Amino acid sequence: MNNFYILHDSQNTYYRSPFGAVKLGTEISIVIESQGCQQAFIELIHFDGHRQSILMEMFYKEGQNDICFFKTSFTATTKGVLNYYFVLKREEQTLYYGNNNECLGGVGQIYVENPKYYQITVYQDNLVPQWYKEGIIYQIFVDRFYNGNDTGLVDNPKKNSFIYGNWYDKPMYIKDANGKVLRWDFFGGNLKGIIKKLDYIKSLGVTTIYLNPIFESPSCHKYDTANYKNIDPMFGDDKIFKCLCNTANKYGIRIILDGVFSHTGSDSVYFNKNENYDSLGAYQSKESKYYEWYRFRDYPNDYESWWGFENLPNVDELNPSYMDYIINKDDSVLSKWMNLGASGWRLDVADELPDEFIKAIKHKIKKIKNDAILVGEVWEDASNKVSYGQRREYLYGDELDSVMGYTFRDIIVGFLNRNIDSHMLLKKFMNLYENYPKENFYASMNILGTHDTERIITMFMNNYNDENIAKSMVKLAVAFQMTFPGVPVIYYGDEAGLEGQKDPDNRRTYPWNKEDKDILSWYKRLSGIRSNSLVLKRGGLKFFDTNADVICFERSYKNSKILVVMNRNASSSIKVEFGEVKGHYRDLLRDFKNDVYYSAEGIISVELKPAEVKLLVKVF
Amino acid sequence: MNNFYILHDSQNTYYRSPFGAVKLGTEISIVIESQGCQQAFIELIHFDGHRQSILMEMFYKEGQNDICFFKTSFTATTKGVLNYYFVLKREEQTLYYGNNNECLGGVGQIYVENPKYYQITVYQDNLVPQWYKEGIIYQIFVDRFYNGNDTGLVDNPKKNSFIYGNWYDKPMYIKDANGKVLRWDFFGGNLKGIIKKLDYIKSLGVTTIYLNPIFESPSCHKYDTANYKNIDPMFGDDKIFKCLCNTANKYGIRIILDGVFSHTGSDSVYFNKNENYDSLGAYQSKESKYYEWYRFRDYPNDYESWWGFENLPNVDELNPSYMDYIINKDDSVLSKWMNLGASGWRLDVADELPDEFIKAIKHKIKKIKNDAILVGEVWEDASNKVSYGQRREYLYGDELDSVMGYTFRDIIVGFLNRNIDSHMLLKKFMNLYENYPKENFYASMNILGTHDTERIITMFMNNYNDENIAKSMVKLAVAFQMTFPGVPVIYYGDEAGLEGQKDPDNRRTYPWNKEDKDILSWYKRLSGIRSNSLVLKRGGLKFFDTNADVICFERSYKNSKILVVMNRNASSSIKVEFGEVKGHYRDLLRDFKNDVYYSAEGIISVELKPAEVKLLVKVF
Repeated sequence: MNNFYILHDSQNTYYRSPFGAVKLGTEISIVIESQGCQQAFIELIHFDGHRQSILMEMFYKEGQNDICFFKTSFTATTKGVLNYYFVLKREEQTLYYGNNNECLGGVGQIYVENPKYYQITVYQDNLVPQWYKEGIIYQIFVDRFYNGNDTGLVDNPKKNSFIYGNWYDKPMYIKDANGKVLRWDFFGGNLKGIIKKLDYIKSLGVTTIYLNPIFESPSCHKYDTANYKNIDPMFGDDKIFKCLCNTANKYGIRIILDGVFSHTGSDSVYFNKNENYDSLGAYQSKESKYYEWYRFRDYPNDYESWWGFENLPNVDELNPSYMDYIINKDDSVLSKWMNLGASGWRLDVADELPDEFIKAIKHKIKKIKNDAILVGEVWEDASNKVSYGQRREYLYGDELDSVMGYTFRDIIVGFLNRNIDSHMLLKKFMNLYENYPKENFYASMNILGTHDTERIITMFMNNYNDENIAKSMVKLAVAFQMTFPGVPVIYYGDEAGLEGQKDPDNRRTYPWNKEDKDILSWYKRLSGIRSNSLVLKRGGLKFFDTNADVICFERSYKNSKILVVMNRNASSSIKVEFGEVKGHYRDLLRDFKNDVYYSAEGIISVELKPAEVKLLVKVF
Repeated sequence: MNNFYILHDSQNTYYRSPFGAVKLGTEISIVIESQGCQQAFIELIHFDGHRQSILMEMFYKEGQNDICFFKTSFTATTKGVLNYYFVLKREEQTLYYGNNNECLGGVGQIYVENPKYYQITVYQDNLVPQWYKEGIIYQIFVDRFYNGNDTGLVDNPKKNSFIYGNWYDKPMYIKDANGKVLRWDFFGGNLKGIIKKLDYIKSLGVTTIYLNPIFESPSCHKYDTANYKNIDPMFGDDKIFKCLCNTANKYGIRIILDGVFSHTGSDSVYFNKNENYDSLGAYQSKESKYYEWYRFRDYPNDYESWWGFENLPNVDELNPSYMDYIINKDDSVLSKWMNLGASGWRLDVADELPDEFIKAIKHKIKKIKNDAILVGEVWEDASNKVSYGQRREYLYGDELDSVMGYTFRDIIVGFLNRNIDSHMLLKKFMNLYENYPKENFYASMNILGTHDTERIITMFMNNYNDENIAKSMVKLAVAFQMTFPGVPVIYYGDEAGLEGQKDPDNRRTYPWNKEDKDILSWYKRLSGIRSNSLVLKRGGLKFFDTNADVICFERSYKNSKILVVMNRNASSSIKVEFGEVKGHYRDLLRDFKNDVYYSAEGIISVELKPAEVKLLVKVF
């Protein structure tokens, strides 16, 4: 009994092969080893619910006669998450071996009952367009970016609205005591402003602009759509939108739009609760052609709405008339804006959209443009997301190309703020790497912040309460983002050192002429490195587990290699050694030529100053 | 006992002479008549508190032997209110005769104890400048009147402030749940705007513009002064102010300013609580040269403030340094603005300013310009106002020239809204006519609304809930205002039919291009009549008590006479007859020549349609 153990490591190809998610029809080999067990079964739970128990074949390795190995192989026949665990017999005892307690894959653990499942994601092939996955995204909250009017005037202010007195004022909601917005607040950023700043945006290495919603709506955020077929008149019109897309394309930049399809605004041509539109809205009459889009419990005042917000009535996405309007018709919402120049969509609250609806969108947009892109707002691991009791099919091939990387953000920020160490960071990223189809992993939106989170510098200020440390941490986060698999996303203003707590503070205006030059030049430098590096865009990923304060990983593509090593410790230098990296390396971030690391035996030794990052590129 | 009575009528010169308020040193004759009393004393209570009991001389009139009269006369030797009542002996009984229960003067009543006092206001001579008392005032809340920038841009918006999206948006406060203003809200009206609209203002017959505060301050209303010596940069600067005064003078228009001297803002060069100013403020240090202006209970956070508003610290007006700054120095606040062109001041919350302070202001401004004007914000009868337990000396000659006529407004609106009838209206106005020194009565600001009240049309809408009736009542109110003694005041926008409940709704923007043409032309017509009529500016006042729904009074000056007759009843015609008005009359508001009223016997008969007013001018 002394040497009893069981071992399976889902992330080691000796135990499971191939690595990670697999295409439908792939044969998967599984090995588990044990000292003291006489029999092993693998229990498979397919996505459709059917279970399979396979008796595994025992074998021994030469010179390891006290250890018995069990192997088997099977074919991934059902799209979706394929779960598994092991049942082992040890004398009269039945033991289970399953995923570790955190369900992060890799080495698992023994259970006497209720083992946690391992996951194999089984997907249908889905190639994500290269322009997207090898690019850099710039996210713009339009009202807060730049006002393109030379006069400084705001176009078409809404009735009973407020314009901030100054571009640099701090945003706030104008609410009553119950939290209801009384008036909407605007700074006056618009599409013209983006066109005028394309030179600047391009200087950040950006290839894709993701615009927060731009369709007509009463609010500054525009998640309460009033008319899916109009650009908000404060932002521009069809012509200006087309001009933006065309001009951006000349810069090698594509535009993706925010599709807010789970609900409309109540103050809209469709619902028309406030009677601000000429149409006959669903709220006004059951004869409205939009009536069947909505779900009334007691007409007209009791209706389903998004998170109970009365101004956001939910739609029945699968209603044929709604699907025709948004998706299917020749002049559908998707068609209109893609024909005017949009290259893809980000789906707001994807968790609240039925799979059938997302699939129909995916199908349609690829028909309109075969290199269109579909991104989803999913805050957790999208490969196994359960929402409203239902397992979602986002990443199985016919839905999303990319999801917003809130997990990415949580992990890197958690590490830099010392909530987790690098060992845990490694596990968490490896879990995503393992669970996500490779195309989706490499297409993830690697965000450091969005309109829905605190700004990145503020995350660090809140934790360290020290401006210098916060800036150092921003630099590390950016270095990580720009060197990791997935698409780096810059939330407008982060690159200028803009601070901001949660909404609305995270929607401050871009600080034109007040940028933090140091942070800005760091962004430009790192995005420049990313832009020019196929290794960083396409290369494989391998972590080295070193000091708890140090992240260390390798990116490799063909004969090229870059080692990324960073020390989160802002007060101590740390020396780390790690292996399997033969060659000479030079730090891309150091200009002097003698900063060369030599690794003859495959072990490289790197000393990092406090809060330092090195990007060691293999020179020969 | 059957025929027992006592009678004194303070408004009938047989019983008291001269009528009304008297100049210091005037001999006053008093008569009281009685059936059944044998002896009468008049009890005088002088302003300084000393009392006098005068045995009155009994006399009889021929043919009225059963009635005994008592008379006496005395000299008004003490400035201020001189009160009186009578003590009468009837057989063994002591009876009192004093003012009526409402203390409105005129016929009084018998008391068995505690008689109410009659009032004789004793004043020192104070001639109010003719330009003021014979003019028409236009009150402007600057931010809401007109933006003189052709671009539509707002000058120098304050940090963290809001500009309304549209000129026609409705004003609102941006407050937190505790009612604290979080951001100030601006439309962008400015002094340039007033300059550009002088043509328009002149077309209303206006000769005086009263500006709500214009000195630098964080708010839109500017009652929280930050710097008494700067024009608020959103409104203009010294140069623009001077230009406004000069240009207005060319139109025959003078400018009077709002002096807010009972408190400053906390966010000011003086207090500097928010450290927004370079100065050393009283809140920041006891070494501040402004420290002694304020009253700290516990330095620095516990200080006296206006009605408990922390952002409005009260000043000690009589502090010599404060008096020097505001009043006495050559470059004092009063001097600076009068030298740049201001013709007078309206004192905010006069009740909270010590008499000595107001007297010093009066003295100073008359020294700067001998035809300067001083108006006070007093909401009640200013001749006998008691504030904070102290009897105020506003109208005794060395303080105010004019007070804001909130009583005027209350009476006429109360009548038109049917809360009081014309008999009570008559009594109330006669009481003011009796109590106010004539100069002050003729210099009263006859307001129908201000920045602190509902707008006039809204007062009627709130009552009648009928737009047509409300408009008719506005017309009657304006006709009354333009024909009554005192200075008609037009609160910007009232003449355009602007609606508005209390603050902030009463501070809507002037509705340029959306004026109610009907009301506007009525205003112009009536103000035109006023402007061209010495009778209306200077004439004596005499009421006729007719139908409860009808106001009827005569204005007369030299040989000229105008009879004003109006019917508040919006559904019935009313015919009234009244006397002592010999002559032929024509209605100024009717264009046809045969609308002539003939009154041979001194009795005139006038039929008024519903809500009609006639201005009958004596033609021969």
